[in-house]
Amino acid sequence: MSKWKIGIVGASGYSGEELCTILGRHPQVEAVCLTSRQHAGKKLSEVMPKFVNRGGFGDLRFVEPEISTLTASDAEVFFLALPHGKAAEFAVPLLKAGKRVIDISADFRVKSPAVYEEFYGEKHPAPDFLDQGVYGLPEIHREAIRKARLVASPGCYPTSILLPLVPLLKAGLIERDSIAVSSLSGVSGAGRKAETTFLFVECSESARAYGVPKHRHLSEIEQELSSAAKSPVQISFTPHLIPLNRGIYSTIYCKPTAGAEKKIEETLQAVYKNEIFVRVSDVIPDLKNVVHTNFCDISCRYDERTGRILLFSAIDNLVKGAGGQAVQSMNLMAGFDETTALL
Amino acid sequence: MSKWKIGIVGASGYSGEELCTILGRHPQVEAVCLTSRQHAGKKLSEVMPKFVNRGGFGDLRFVEPEISTLTASDAEVFFLALPHGKAAEFAVPLLKAGKRVIDISADFRVKSPAVYEEFYGEKHPAPDFLDQGVYGLPEIHREAIRKARLVASPGCYPTSILLPLVPLLKAGLIERDSIAVSSLSGVSGAGRKAETTFLFVECSESARAYGVPKHRHLSEIEQELSSAAKSPVQISFTPHLIPLNRGIYSTIYCKPTAGAEKKIEETLQAVYKNEIFVRVSDVIPDLKNVVHTNFCDISCRYDERTGRILLFSAIDNLVKGAGGQAVQSMNLMAGFDETTALL
Amino acid sequence: MSKWKIGIVGASGYSGEELCTILGRHPQVEAVCLTSRQHAGKKLSEVMPKFVNRGGFGDLRFVEPEISTLTASDAEVFFLALPHGKAAEFAVPLLKAGKRVIDISADFRVKSPAVYEEFYGEKHPAPDFLDQGVYGLPEIHREAIRKARLVASPGCYPTSILLPLVPLLKAGLIERDSIAVSSLSGVSGAGRKAETTFLFVECSESARAYGVPKHRHLSEIEQELSSAAKSPVQISFTPHLIPLNRGIYSTIYCKPTAGAEKKIEETLQAVYKNEIFVRVSDVIPDLKNVVHTNFCDISCRYDERTGRILLFSAIDNLVKGAGGQAVQSMNLMAGFDETTALL
Amino acid sequence: MSKWKIGIVGASGYSGEELCTILGRHPQVEAVCLTSRQHAGKKLSEVMPKFVNRGGFGDLRFVEPEISTLTASDAEVFFLALPHGKAAEFAVPLLKAGKRVIDISADFRVKSPAVYEEFYGEKHPAPDFLDQGVYGLPEIHREAIRKARLVASPGCYPTSILLPLVPLLKAGLIERDSIAVSSLSGVSGAGRKAETTFLFVECSESARAYGVPKHRHLSEIEQELSSAAKSPVQISFTPHLIPLNRGIYSTIYCKPTAGAEKKIEETLQAVYKNEIFVRVSDVIPDLKNVVHTNFCDISCRYDERTGRILLFSAIDNLVKGAGGQAVQSMNLMAGFDETTALL
Repeated sequence: MSKWKIGIVGASGYSGEELCTILGRHPQVEAVCLTSRQHAGKKLSEVMPKFVNRGGFGDLRFVEPEISTLTASDAEVFFLALPHGKAAEFAVPLLKAGKRVIDISADFRVKSPAVYEEFYGEKHPAPDFLDQGVYGLPEIHREAIRKARLVASPGCYPTSILLPLVPLLKAGLIERDSIAVSSLSGVSGAGRKAETTFLFVECSESARAYGVPKHRHLSEIEQELSSAAKSPVQISFTPHLIPLNRGIYSTIYCKPTAGAEKKIEETLQAVYKNEIFVRVSDVIPDLKNVVHTNFCDISCRYDERTGRILLFSAIDNLVKGAGGQAVQSMNLMAGFDETTALL
Repeated sequence: MSKWKIGIVGASGYSGEELCTILGRHPQVEAVCLTSRQHAGKKLSEVMPKFVNRGGFGDLRFVEPEISTLTASDAEVFFLALPHGKAAEFAVPLLKAGKRVIDISADFRVKSPAVYEEFYGEKHPAPDFLDQGVYGLPEIHREAIRKARLVASPGCYPTSILLPLVPLLKAGLIERDSIAVSSLSGVSGAGRKAETTFLFVECSESARAYGVPKHRHLSEIEQELSSAAKSPVQISFTPHLIPLNRGIYSTIYCKPTAGAEKKIEETLQAVYKNEIFVRVSDVIPDLKNVVHTNFCDISCRYDERTGRILLFSAIDNLVKGAGGQAVQSMNLMAGFDETTALL
Repeated sequence: MSKWKIGIVGASGYSGEELCTILGRHPQVEAVCLTSRQHAGKKLSEVMPKFVNRGGFGDLRFVEPEISTLTASDAEVFFLALPHGKAAEFAVPLLKAGKRVIDISADFRVKSPAVYEEFYGEKHPAPDFLDQGVYGLPEIHREAIRKARLVASPGCYPTSILLPLVPLLKAGLIERDSIAVSSLSGVSGAGRKAETTFLFVECSESARAYGVPKHRHLSEIEQELSSAAKSPVQISFTPHLIPLNRGIYSTIYCKPTAGAEKKIEETLQAVYKNEIFVRVSDVIPDLKNVVHTNFCDISCRYDERTGRILLFSAIDNLVKGAGGQAVQSMNLMAGFDETTALL
Repeated sequence: MSKWKIGIVGASGYSGEELCTILGRHPQVEAVCLTSRQHAGKKLSEVMPKFVNRGGFGDLRFVEPEISTLTASDAEVFFLALPHGKAAEFAVPLLKAGKRVIDISADFRVKSPAVYEEFYGEKHPAPDFLDQGVYGLPEIHREAIRKARLVASPGCYPTSILLPLVPLLKAGLIERDSIAVSSLSGVSGAGRKAETTFLFVECSESARAYGVPKHRHLSEIEQELSSAAKSPVQISFTPHLIPLNRGIYSTIYCKPTAGAEKKIEETLQAVYKNEIFVRVSDVIPDLKNVVHTNFCDISCRYDERTGRILLFSAIDNLVKGAGGQAVQSMNLMAGFDETTALL
């Protein structure tokens, strides 16, 4: 059987590297194009020696991210691992050329150009294409992803927050105005950027909140929560940077609707019973069980003293929060087994 | 001028070690007694080579924690760095012998024996002495500490939570039932205990919530918050273990009372204006600015979208959260400058 | 095709856990028995939640390590992930019962009972079986491993030191008495043992040499180096504990024999040209390129100022230094592709 | 008594920050000038919030590093915490203006312009001033430092290597051509530079050698070793970057001269008997005992199997390896107690 041909635009950041790792071991996929402006002409394995002798795409050479080259290639799908704003510049011509696109940036996650502008501080670069984008959370939008031409793969924080909350809001078990989230992120979430803020010495033996009270990811989180609740939802969200490489850990405080406290855990268990990648359990999640995997671990507790429900979730930000989830969507789009290359 | 004579019972744990560090550089203090069952007979500097040549107590030998030895010594004040339950066994005879006691354990923090039993799972070991205990948060109970015979030095999480919240509850600026706290702790908070859970490999590249929904520290937190509010306060509190040695970082969600959102920051600024160790600022705290110090950094944000106030605080769990704060109390008790050995 | 049936004795330590991870994704292997005295009766995935939903052995229950149970099982090969001394107690009856054994402990690595006693401080527990043991370094002893009944899988430090040095000593390119090695190890090398020495706080922001000048691993290192050189070799070896979970990094100082300095790199390149798992390159190794893999990265430099050759090697101590290499041997013994489950 | 007036040029890097910390608690010193091109006009405590309320220099504003401003100030001594090459541009006019200079850069450490050019790849910027520079290792050059106008404060690696080796070479106990050193450094050694190489994610869970075989620090190390031996000494030196903030750990292999193996430890003990900051002991050093201090811990072992001596040393690279040692020199120059602000 011939392989699906794929391209990765922006392959030298952390998400791009993770895509190369995962797709490189995918038996039904062949990369025809990896782009990197900085490393064009060099092999992937020259730039990142971990790829030597691993099979996969190690011997492939980076090319310049020229749109004409990409549209002319025989890749059927392109992964965009680019900064927001930049991704749309590639997505539009690729879509027009008949390619399918899985965008890991934020460009097509938010349906409303106004909300995009509010949170990202600039006009949306391609508002006419927002309709096409399917929010790529397979456990929530599986059927739409199968048929999508353009998948907007979710952010890392949103993935960790939506997986526990969406089913509960759908079922009407949570008071919509009661939600407050505290999330912890590993430093790879900041990308491979040369900024002193993310130097080892500035992060090790440290921890700090940032991006409060209006982190950009709130836009997609609230869009999806509101859609689940069929009514507007606004939440408090505080991300923290903690000294580890990978991982997102979200602790969610909310109030159950009347009498709902006993249905929370069983609802989560029922909804995710057949999902391989979402593991609902009474064990409080620990990042070490999910790093380097596509799993999302979820647990809950009822605090009868205050009447609040506590929800906990843990993912690897580069896998379930980026590259792994994008490949999960690709598997759906291509008709492969959804878990291929992800277990 | 002759020096204050002090003793440290349980000097070989992390809090005890920090006390030795701080008190060892205190110019008006002399240690007459360090106890350690495990290391009795050895010099402090033999057990912990960091104390060689540092002056201070390096050449002092650990003695067995015999109560008769302690009561017979000429120490005026004893620091108890022992597990809860154990501390009371020493505090009672020391108090009866006329010594003053600064207890770093939980034994005398909670005024109600019933609450103690509820949270610690055992009967209070010395209920008759609960009245004497002064909760040792100098910024809140300074005058009582000066005169105290028994100081119950606060826990690390409580210190980080009470310093921002107490003034706001006193001023009626916070809805009492709206408080949810997410705290991050370094691993030294677990003590120097040989448990696999706290091995390097189990904590590095990991993070996890624990002790939910009813961590023991809630007992003292709610006691002090209720006292400030003059009405019962119950909160949600989720501690997390993150991979760093030292530090507590607390992120607090709460609702302002009507119209109070604009008074939060100015109230904190006003209350702590003359406090050296509490630094209120509009810069979001970062643990790296407080580790190895007795400072508590506090900041706040109003989230107008949800109407919630976010409060952030950061301390070193072994200094402001344990040994440093105990010495701050001692400085008050002895009539020394409150900051001695702490800047 | 029916699968190879395997058993793992001592499956709950770090090496045992790594074996479960690797073998759990091996398509030609089926586990019939995992033992753990502590966890007998529980599923692997109950004890280690990371194994939930991963396929592999997650649903298998630990059994008591009873020798009669093991010999009666239909496993063809047993992996022993036990402390030295203990492993031989299982290896002997298993071999007598016709099972093949891959021992990750030190029990059968050293051929001389006298050397074993010198370095391990106790009489060898099964000297009659020492002859059967094949030192399980596939790149050096591949053919013997294929036919072995008993494989003594190398230690982590030895793997990192032997792979660069053995070919050079075989080729007579290194002065035998000139070798000094400085190695760095992640904390998982110490095992999942409840000792205060390996607590997070004792290791983070720290580093220290240990086990000098006569670490136990010297016994197998010098045996194999001497065998390669056909003449006795003694080296200086200093292991260091550094704050990371996984990895061994060895820096080796040695003197080339007359005129050999120019042949070092080409010899290493030639010897390992067809080896997937040994990557010789002019890039100085970095642990991040090998962690979680079965690769050994090697590089060399000639220091013309001092006339010394510097060799660098990096492995993951739990993969190429333990479980991965053991599976590589198993693949050879079973006639599978040597890289199965290891890329 | 009036205080010594000092200036710090380049106060916003890691070494400059450490100088501000140490000098800020020095009772006999007053800062009249901190320079930072990037932060000119801002208070130290605005740029680094850790300095708020700490006394010291927190309220001092950074000024532009204008030479005319510096020469016109009433500072008696200037610390230069600048890149090499840059430091000389300030040192020369400051010396000409009668100021004393303590240079933390490499500019005046090496006496030979040719050696400087060989190792630093550029012509020495002020060869006429090389004679004036005193190598600022107080335990070796105390008397010269007292009188120096220009102190070239040693590098971090050199400090850790020279303190154990210099007395042994002086005493003729070490074969001059037998020395090989493996050193481990925390990431702060790389400075506060925005380079991807030193991002948290690139360093955490990693370790690597670098700068081999001819690291720049070799120039000063060999100069001082040769001076001690009264004969040329060349060594092998391999620095490694490991994932911690602070610390240098050096492991040194060498051969004793005939019969000298028994005199090594007693010689070190005797030489450093009265030195506060050098602690010779039979305990293998551990970085955690020296970080945040000005101590250098040293230990040795004789490996009778190979006839080699192993020496171990540990320092904090920013204290004894930079700012602390510079202040130690300043204390000597000013006639203060040598340990002031350093214990």
